[in-house]
Amino acid sequence: MQALNDLLAFQKDTEALAQVSGRLSWDQETMMPRGAGHQRGEETAALESVLHARRTDPRLGDWLAACEGQEMSQADAAKLRLIRRSYERSVKIPERLAVELARVTSLAQGQWAEAREKDDFAAFAPVLSRVIALRQEEGAALAGEGTPYDALIADYEPGTTAAELGAIFDAMRPRLVDLRARVLEKPAPKGAEGSFDEAAQMALTREIALAFGYDLNRGRIDKAVHPFSSGSGDDVRITTRTNPEDPFNSLYSTIHETGHACYEQNIDRSYALSPLGQGVSMGVHESQSRIYENQLGRSRAFTGWLFDRFRRAYGDFGIDTPEAFYAAVNRVQKDFIRTEADELQYNLHIMLRFDLEQQLIGGTLQVGDLEEAWNTRFAADFGYAVPKPSLGCLQDVHWSLGLFGYFPTYALGNVYAGCLHEALRADLPDLDASLAQGITTPATDWLRDNLQRHGGLREPRDTITHACGKAPDAEPLLRYIETKFSEIYYL
Amino acid sequence: MQALNDLLAFQKDTEALAQVSGRLSWDQETMMPRGAGHQRGEETAALESVLHARRTDPRLGDWLAACEGQEMSQADAAKLRLIRRSYERSVKIPERLAVELARVTSLAQGQWAEAREKDDFAAFAPVLSRVIALRQEEGAALAGEGTPYDALIADYEPGTTAAELGAIFDAMRPRLVDLRARVLEKPAPKGAEGSFDEAAQMALTREIALAFGYDLNRGRIDKAVHPFSSGSGDDVRITTRTNPEDPFNSLYSTIHETGHACYEQNIDRSYALSPLGQGVSMGVHESQSRIYENQLGRSRAFTGWLFDRFRRAYGDFGIDTPEAFYAAVNRVQKDFIRTEADELQYNLHIMLRFDLEQQLIGGTLQVGDLEEAWNTRFAADFGYAVPKPSLGCLQDVHWSLGLFGYFPTYALGNVYAGCLHEALRADLPDLDASLAQGITTPATDWLRDNLQRHGGLREPRDTITHACGKAPDAEPLLRYIETKFSEIYYL
Repeated sequence: MQALNDLLAFQKDTEALAQVSGRLSWDQETMMPRGAGHQRGEETAALESVLHARRTDPRLGDWLAACEGQEMSQADAAKLRLIRRSYERSVKIPERLAVELARVTSLAQGQWAEAREKDDFAAFAPVLSRVIALRQEEGAALAGEGTPYDALIADYEPGTTAAELGAIFDAMRPRLVDLRARVLEKPAPKGAEGSFDEAAQMALTREIALAFGYDLNRGRIDKAVHPFSSGSGDDVRITTRTNPEDPFNSLYSTIHETGHACYEQNIDRSYALSPLGQGVSMGVHESQSRIYENQLGRSRAFTGWLFDRFRRAYGDFGIDTPEAFYAAVNRVQKDFIRTEADELQYNLHIMLRFDLEQQLIGGTLQVGDLEEAWNTRFAADFGYAVPKPSLGCLQDVHWSLGLFGYFPTYALGNVYAGCLHEALRADLPDLDASLAQGITTPATDWLRDNLQRHGGLREPRDTITHACGKAPDAEPLLRYIETKFSEIYYL
Repeated sequence: MQALNDLLAFQKDTEALAQVSGRLSWDQETMMPRGAGHQRGEETAALESVLHARRTDPRLGDWLAACEGQEMSQADAAKLRLIRRSYERSVKIPERLAVELARVTSLAQGQWAEAREKDDFAAFAPVLSRVIALRQEEGAALAGEGTPYDALIADYEPGTTAAELGAIFDAMRPRLVDLRARVLEKPAPKGAEGSFDEAAQMALTREIALAFGYDLNRGRIDKAVHPFSSGSGDDVRITTRTNPEDPFNSLYSTIHETGHACYEQNIDRSYALSPLGQGVSMGVHESQSRIYENQLGRSRAFTGWLFDRFRRAYGDFGIDTPEAFYAAVNRVQKDFIRTEADELQYNLHIMLRFDLEQQLIGGTLQVGDLEEAWNTRFAADFGYAVPKPSLGCLQDVHWSLGLFGYFPTYALGNVYAGCLHEALRADLPDLDASLAQGITTPATDWLRDNLQRHGGLREPRDTITHACGKAPDAEPLLRYIETKFSEIYYL
């Protein structure tokens, strides 16, 4: 038992330091003085170096070996499984590679921002090639029996493979492409009109976050350029942004981040500062943010209540009925940008990236050919041409950061959200009556009790299976999307 | 050279982690959600444990030994001197004692706040006794040839002793007690009247901080319960508070913190994240905050400009002439609280604490007798009785935190400020003409060039000697105080 206690005590400090690192990132995006960037780089690097040393500390191996075969609780066994995975992974990556990756991606992020600004993919291509070479090397070091790309996916979504994801996506793609084409033949619903006071938007944002169960006693809401959620346990902060011409952006990005934040806040308190004390994977995390944002927040019942709330907050804003409001927040438009995509088109954006990044890491697509490959695929799935790279292959920061294997978890999160939504609707036949009054508690309580509180106790896929009572698949999401948009667009 | 490079690289990461720790404290006082306190305790403890391990890392001893006798720059030699001092000090303190001190002072801080709230010294006495016992043990472990109390002083003001400080203070005390008695026989100047808009106070606060040279590109100003300055180098933040009935409190506490912050911001950039990259001692730090606040900010010339600024900001506020304004911001009142004391009485508050804490650590005063000893001494120096412990021995947080040896650096800072003021006035005969226009640059540039930029290059006392061209003593401060208050009070 001594080894187990020592291991868990050591891990607790590592988790606490990881929280400190998260707090630093939050500060950097919200509070840090502009001129402090260089110094912050040094501070972050020092902390990351401490974390790396702890994650590869040889004592971890000794403790893990000493715990082998011991009787222990389900929670402790899960903690050990996650510590072992992290340790075995970390020691496979040479420190030189880790340092080089940190250095090159930090450089690449700046060059990406500049290239996007100037709409010049060629300016970004050389550093992207270096990022890819380093991640290929990392993937190869980690690969074991799978492919390098599978090894990278495991960073974000342990227990799945490109083959599994590809099979899911291949089944979805033709149905979404088809539905998209039929929807876009119809007239587009009217959007909101006028100017929307930013203080009123922030006030509404706060009210809605609370309505979805966000605990402000253990969190806070600030403005930032990009909305995000940060931290675990008792300190989970979210950010939002406001746009005076678009009241929906701040609202729905806040509901999205509230979903992420509530997942973290609702994890069993006894798991705090242990490997179980965070959301189990990116895909499961995204399932929470998306179900809050879409299946709940963009439902007909909830938007009925929201329409009334909007009228009180903004007066006349160019939309006259709850039904028109419902159509407006679910409007499908010809557009290029993933982060602004509706529920129908979003997954098509992901599949495009998934296929291309798999080829990039696999070496079957060269960076020099990426822009053309992107544009060709976009035209095939969306039906029109990308006019410039800032609306195409330069739109996302992810690849500059080396985040290959991350994109598919967004679509997987949607698939999971579809399953969870089907299951909770079956358990809560009267949910719409609550949502129509702005009350989300039956749904958010269901998610807390069946999924969120368990944190990292089970593997990602098992987490969904446990909550839904059956294994996840894409059918519920597809049915939900097809039904919803067929109704809104009178197909 | 390899040992020197390795040592300085290692130390750079330690300094960067210490900055992270400072950022966490700032967050805790300004931004942290209320419910995150317990978790933050774990995060802070994990980071402190990393810092403790680095400060006692045996490699430091090896590197220091390998560097012995090598040729190196003045700056590198100073860095090594400071690293050696920190290392030799840290390894003398058993880890058990360090952990116990952290645990007991964290407990004591809460009990102190409660006892002060309830005006019940007896409720605080037991935990204070434990804090004192631990600090006595620490002092004994560190003492070497000096006394345990001297060893504790060295934490805050290396190179001085209780005997030296006592000699300075003994020379000051009778002159201040006498002046104080004569001043308080005179009618008190009128204070500000009315209600002072908090947004206007914050705006003025910002303007004045900038006027004293604070660089907002490398800092920020927030509200907090207690004003403080935090961080070094490119990320130096200050806080302030506003009181709708008192426009002077937020103003002068901001100028005070600006003094601390400008010292940090003005240190030679090449010293960043090295042992030279922070203010050299508490006393020298306090000399900067006090000279900004008092010798400059409360000068007749500067308050003449400030009076005009106040009229524009607040309209009629019950003070009609620059001379009455000057008297108001320098008003001497019968009061009990150190932090609100004027320049004349402030040092008497410190001397009282210095004498009592020396006896507490020396074992000649028991905690059970502290309240009576405080009240007796207060009556002797101030001429009236302390009505309750929250206005007496429970007013300061310091002892609950174990900060014995810290108080005297406040008065030493005033003595240093007196010396620096004398020297800069000699170099800048026309300073008042600038101050009368709200321009502090000649004085703040002088302080930057002669003192601030050098950071930790020289020992504290040598830092003052270098700036002033002669060794510090209390005469300049006493002359300044006697002249100023004799004039204001027509003695």
